Amino acid sequence: MIFSHCSIIGLGLLGGSLALDLRRLYPGMAITGIARRQETLDEAAALHEGNTPVFTHLTTDVTAVRAADLIVLCTPVLTIVNQLAEIAPHLAPGTVVTDVGSTKRMIMNAAATVLPAQVAFVGGHPMAGSEQVGLSASYAGLYTGATWALCAAAGAEEAATRLAALVEALGARPLPIDPDLHDDLVALSSHLPHVAAAALTNTTLGSGQGDAVRPFLAGGFRDTTRIAAASPAMWRDICLTNRDRLLAALDAYLAELTSWRDAIRYGDAPHLEALLTTACQRRKQL
Amino acid sequence: MIFSHCSIIGLGLLGGSLALDLRRLYPGMAITGIARRQETLDEAAALHEGNTPVFTHLTTDVTAVRAADLIVLCTPVLTIVNQLAEIAPHLAPGTVVTDVGSTKRMIMNAAATVLPAQVAFVGGHPMAGSEQVGLSASYAGLYTGATWALCAAAGAEEAATRLAALVEALGARPLPIDPDLHDDLVALSSHLPHVAAAALTNTTLGSGQGDAVRPFLAGGFRDTTRIAAASPAMWRDICLTNRDRLLAALDAYLAELTSWRDAIRYGDAPHLEALLTTACQRRKQL
Repeated sequence: MIFSHCSIIGLGLLGGSLALDLRRLYPGMAITGIARRQETLDEAAALHEGNTPVFTHLTTDVTAVRAADLIVLCTPVLTIVNQLAEIAPHLAPGTVVTDVGSTKRMIMNAAATVLPAQVAFVGGHPMAGSEQVGLSASYAGLYTGATWALCAAAGAEEAATRLAALVEALGARPLPIDPDLHDDLVALSSHLPHVAAAALTNTTLGSGQGDAVRPFLAGGFRDTTRIAAASPAMWRDICLTNRDRLLAALDAYLAELTSWRDAIRYGDAPHLEALLTTACQRRKQL
Repeated sequence: MIFSHCSIIGLGLLGGSLALDLRRLYPGMAITGIARRQETLDEAAALHEGNTPVFTHLTTDVTAVRAADLIVLCTPVLTIVNQLAEIAPHLAPGTVVTDVGSTKRMIMNAAATVLPAQVAFVGGHPMAGSEQVGLSASYAGLYTGATWALCAAAGAEEAATRLAALVEALGARPLPIDPDLHDDLVALSSHLPHVAAAALTNTTLGSGQGDAVRPFLAGGFRDTTRIAAASPAMWRDICLTNRDRLLAALDAYLAELTSWRDAIRYGDAPHLEALLTTACQRRKQL
């Protein structure tokens, strides 16, 4: 066992799925679940792996983190920032703290500011999840095959190595990366697609045509907008904690769309076909 | 049998899947397949339903349409427009002509202009397909559950009734609609999503980050951009034959994205959360 007592703060899709995987991998691990709402804790108490309860402790009290040697923050990004300050006075020396937030710069800065020196922080971001939310959507194996970005704080190299081993045990692929580069790349790969899909949903379903459009919504529209159903609070925090990089990506998208607009407006068939062919080839290469 | 001899022009995903369904439904129906390339015809000759060949005739010669009482054009929209003129001199009186093109106004206008008076034209558009292309991707059941728009030309009401019965036999849902309204609605439900997905593909995969972004492309990006892999030639024609309506939809999308951009730029959390919540609720209601 790489860690003997894991505290998971935030029992949604990511936290719940992590707990299920950890229980399956490590029958002897102590797993504390921490959530704000009693009904979430009640739901968590019902989770079992075979006959074994997934959680050994469940509480609303964040000071319970003092018993753990690994703490994983699984809440929206701005909540993570606040909770780092909340748990800071209650951490035992040698504790490893990580998170699963989708942006890394603000969290790394907060950890560097508020955590005591004897605690090792390694920011984390598994590229897993879905538009489903909540503990009820969680399942063992969510992280299988996913890239799991790891940003080690200064002096947390050994903790990062241990966490990478845990990530591999979960079936995911640890990827050490600088938080700046991480936030650049996810702006393009994840945050811009979310904004594009959500704005498309609002445009098509909020048009003056009302329900007349519904019979014409086929698989293409459904796939293209699937992620728009994800948690608004989670995505608000993601957008707000990666503003500069998301803005740059969004401006690149607006410039690209303007090029499409010109080709369509002027009936420029060769330009339009070139744009479509580039997209087709790039998408097929994935 | 509603029709006794069906000629299908264009043997790609839609034409091939239609032939497979017709053979399954009507073992005694004559089915002529017409394509430009001999290798497509060779591939079509290998298609069977059980031991029965799907096609009774295969040819590159469009004048073969004279034997049919139903002709279905399954080529890209601008090719359909040209082929209506090509087949016009070779149609027997009483023939029903239809198509599966994604825009309807230009095709209806072409049919009204070039087809002889004794022929009934009913424009069609099944909301089915995928990013897969070609006869090899075709399968029986592609149209099951799909909305199938039908635009009857003046005087083609009886033909439209017969075609609606055929569409129902295929397991799809016939929807009589005016071509203007059709083109408005598909601009929002299908053409704008295609442009949004293809432009997103070009932005994310064409960024200066190169291959570094690849480990960060998860299910969200893949779903959101799936349709970008569809046939560029088909989509060029769709965009060019629905320019005004697609431009209006694209301008609405650009206005929506600009609103998102402002909320992100100014860190306007309530506005951003309102935009995200609207999208989430609308998408969940689908």
